[in-house]
Amino acid sequence: MSLKIAIAQINFVVGNIAANVEAIIKAASYARDHLHAELVVFPELTITGYPAEDLLLRADFIEAANNAIYELAERVSDIALVVGYPEAKGEQLFNSAVVLYQGVIVANYRKQFLPNYGVFDEQRYFCSGDAPGVFEFNGLFIGLSICEDVWTEGLIQTYKAAGAELMLTLNASPFNAGKVHQREAIICQQVKLAELPLVYVNQIGGQDELIFDGASFAVDSNGVIVFRAEEFKEQISLIEFDGINPLKSICAPLYQYISSEYNALVLGVKDYVRKNGFQGAILGLSGGIDSALVLALAVDALGADKVEVVLMPSVYTQDMSNEDAIWEAEALGVNYHIIPIAPAVEAFTGMLAEVFAGTARDTTEENIQARCRGVILMALSNKKGKLLLTTGNKSEMSVGYATLYGDMAGGFAPIKDVPKLLVYALANYRNSFSMVIPERVITRPPSAELAPDQVDADSLPAYELLDPILERYVELDQSADEIVAAGFNRADVVRAISLVDRNEYKRRQSPPGIKITSRAFGRDRRYPITSGYRGV
Amino acid sequence: MSLKIAIAQINFVVGNIAANVEAIIKAASYARDHLHAELVVFPELTITGYPAEDLLLRADFIEAANNAIYELAERVSDIALVVGYPEAKGEQLFNSAVVLYQGVIVANYRKQFLPNYGVFDEQRYFCSGDAPGVFEFNGLFIGLSICEDVWTEGLIQTYKAAGAELMLTLNASPFNAGKVHQREAIICQQVKLAELPLVYVNQIGGQDELIFDGASFAVDSNGVIVFRAEEFKEQISLIEFDGINPLKSICAPLYQYISSEYNALVLGVKDYVRKNGFQGAILGLSGGIDSALVLALAVDALGADKVEVVLMPSVYTQDMSNEDAIWEAEALGVNYHIIPIAPAVEAFTGMLAEVFAGTARDTTEENIQARCRGVILMALSNKKGKLLLTTGNKSEMSVGYATLYGDMAGGFAPIKDVPKLLVYALANYRNSFSMVIPERVITRPPSAELAPDQVDADSLPAYELLDPILERYVELDQSADEIVAAGFNRADVVRAISLVDRNEYKRRQSPPGIKITSRAFGRDRRYPITSGYRGV
Repeated sequence: MSLKIAIAQINFVVGNIAANVEAIIKAASYARDHLHAELVVFPELTITGYPAEDLLLRADFIEAANNAIYELAERVSDIALVVGYPEAKGEQLFNSAVVLYQGVIVANYRKQFLPNYGVFDEQRYFCSGDAPGVFEFNGLFIGLSICEDVWTEGLIQTYKAAGAELMLTLNASPFNAGKVHQREAIICQQVKLAELPLVYVNQIGGQDELIFDGASFAVDSNGVIVFRAEEFKEQISLIEFDGINPLKSICAPLYQYISSEYNALVLGVKDYVRKNGFQGAILGLSGGIDSALVLALAVDALGADKVEVVLMPSVYTQDMSNEDAIWEAEALGVNYHIIPIAPAVEAFTGMLAEVFAGTARDTTEENIQARCRGVILMALSNKKGKLLLTTGNKSEMSVGYATLYGDMAGGFAPIKDVPKLLVYALANYRNSFSMVIPERVITRPPSAELAPDQVDADSLPAYELLDPILERYVELDQSADEIVAAGFNRADVVRAISLVDRNEYKRRQSPPGIKITSRAFGRDRRYPITSGYRGV
Repeated sequence: MSLKIAIAQINFVVGNIAANVEAIIKAASYARDHLHAELVVFPELTITGYPAEDLLLRADFIEAANNAIYELAERVSDIALVVGYPEAKGEQLFNSAVVLYQGVIVANYRKQFLPNYGVFDEQRYFCSGDAPGVFEFNGLFIGLSICEDVWTEGLIQTYKAAGAELMLTLNASPFNAGKVHQREAIICQQVKLAELPLVYVNQIGGQDELIFDGASFAVDSNGVIVFRAEEFKEQISLIEFDGINPLKSICAPLYQYISSEYNALVLGVKDYVRKNGFQGAILGLSGGIDSALVLALAVDALGADKVEVVLMPSVYTQDMSNEDAIWEAEALGVNYHIIPIAPAVEAFTGMLAEVFAGTARDTTEENIQARCRGVILMALSNKKGKLLLTTGNKSEMSVGYATLYGDMAGGFAPIKDVPKLLVYALANYRNSFSMVIPERVITRPPSAELAPDQVDADSLPAYELLDPILERYVELDQSADEIVAAGFNRADVVRAISLVDRNEYKRRQSPPGIKITSRAFGRDRRYPITSGYRGV
């Protein structure tokens, strides 16, 4: 007995059922005709993409998704397909996998464990299945499972008991740094306990805040990985089984953390622009490290010809900042404009003189500058049909060190989940391939340049202190006392936490950005705005 | 046998456990000392407020909430308390109700049915209880239940079987128009089937997008309502039981739909401002119907002295608009400023002249005007510590007829879930008490006044057509074909639906607003931004 299984690690578009059907057919034909596969496995909820969110509540959408299964059964022959879809059964909806072969539904499986934590809301949409799904193909008994199922202790063993000789798993497992190691460790451990070989197929691509990183793999019954697809790339690959033993094949090496983070960000920008039909991207280039990194990401994602930048100096902008911004634009070969903001700032100052008479200068005047830049950038975005990228990092988003409708204006926030220290690391990483960010942009003290001689350190603890405090509070849910006990200065902890608590309203109106940490703002961390909770 | 039960329909602050404990003690003391109640029942998750969202994932928060139960047990005597709290049990969390009497925990009940649809995410946080909770008090067997439990067919009958003679239900049931009728009909029906009298205690108050409307009630075993607390008000009331028969008491009449909607909006503005510690509110007053209504709501919520408005005319603003806006401000007695936007618009026009050379005028130039207004309003908001209210309605939010960072700039969007036709109805309703919105503001064709002689009807189907199409598509999830089959013109349907589909990105960055319909944008309707789904 032998079996040739193709892994279709494909980038689907959420909601576009017709396009996804064509992508499935194309991949299946390739697997059959070029790889000579007998069976091809696709990711979780292949037909709709993942996560389709409240589209799953629409009867028309569900009907189209279910009809697509019949269309696939009719249009594909001579290879078995394993496809994920939202299965309608009376009033109930299941997160299902179906096996189609020669026009017939050979088997159907309903996901048993529905994640409803973190970025997942599956219990909002789906009912749980209550039985393992095992089908016979080419004389082998094959078990069907979906994502969370195989993270669940003992699940694979129930398949062993049900007679399965080999497991297939359809997944939409989102990326964060280190997730691939966690995923492989847990699943290999479960495989080893059950002594059932497993083929794991993951989605790839960006979908709003989420990146699916691919890295599909095959494990033998000893829990040893014998094949791994590349991360962050579409790939259709073949696994050959000799009986129930998957033959050793190419294992793409796993990226270092920093490399996986950079690649995730590039893929996120690329897919957000592409899937939303923008002509390209624009951003404001300040001469600071954040916008320098976002520019590099945008160019790596879209190409220099699709990216343009605007320098918007004010009286507080140092010459060094302008010089560095121009250097960056030229180094990456992107078109740049220089539009000083003084005329608009002066106009607003005059317009507000009467109502502001007798008041002291405060952050209001700083915000006006940032908002003038927002108006300019949005005007360019509107006129040219290009996506405006914001350049704020996670440290700033955490403590609200950003201006709503100012530097927060934009459609997508690539480094929203990247803490400041990681911004530096990513800048150095990118420079290691080719120098695109001047050294002094990395080494000079960060500044918003909204007031004379301003630096971030005037308003915030040093990032070397701030970032680990934020990680503990935001990602790990540690209390102030726990963070102090870990060795941090109480005053810094209190300052940081108070700012996080107080700035939920800003985050709520920020554009979506790419999740790369274990907990991102957005669908991952859902806090009330109105809240009497004080972390300190 | 007799029993005096107090209903504590109180307005709690989410997350402020210390303040909520004090509010509970104050209410319990009042119920004991002034109403001579023997037992007082509070709403669902009393200790934390509802919904506390991801605060419930914090160990420090849960520990504080559980400690609060012991504090209450110690500090309150001579009256039994029934209080809701997030019960920590090992690694599990339950949505529980506890009965405290004379320093002792008399009973504890874990909610069995956890809603995870619409605005609810309870399965993200809680495990389900698996047993009815019945305790003996004053010789009566009393059943404990929480919100969704009593909406569930047959649940009350299981209590009858378990020996309960009387039901208590702790609730945090959010408002939408007509919800109170639905709630009473379903629960009275369940009560009637089980022949168990029931006391229903609901939370009141605004929490971000949600309004809890109160209207707590008591039902006798025939399913007849014998008591009803007022809607939208805090109230501590007494129900006397003769054996298991609740004695007939005052039933506050239910508001008409239009009145309940207006009151919900007023409460929503009031609580958002108060609970978030703002000094008051500001808004831009255009002379149009939307801002006129928002002004009336703000003044009714906060008082005229806490509200100020800004008129920001442009060359496209008709004299009539300015006159009407000034009339409205004066009629309601609020402070107003007039700041023409021409200087800023001209500044931006000059700054963009070079990059825009050779391009045609389009919505970009309209957006610049709206964004200049946004900058002015935010400057006033920042300087004065007053909440900026946006004035966009649900019809506009649905089709994206609004400018991001322009008229969408602000911290709270009172009429975000109010369709345009309902805006008119609410304006007339408010005028029926005192004339605050000039007749011609209601009768003239609506216009954004961002281009010469512009009216909404240039860009959108008439609201008489648009609003029912939107209701069917957004609230009822009907397909284009279904809407056309209901008698609407296909071209109008296609136009409306395409705009809804295309504008999710704008809605994602809009401020929170008050849910008053069966499905609001925000936590209620969760669509992907990146989506290939096309409703047409």
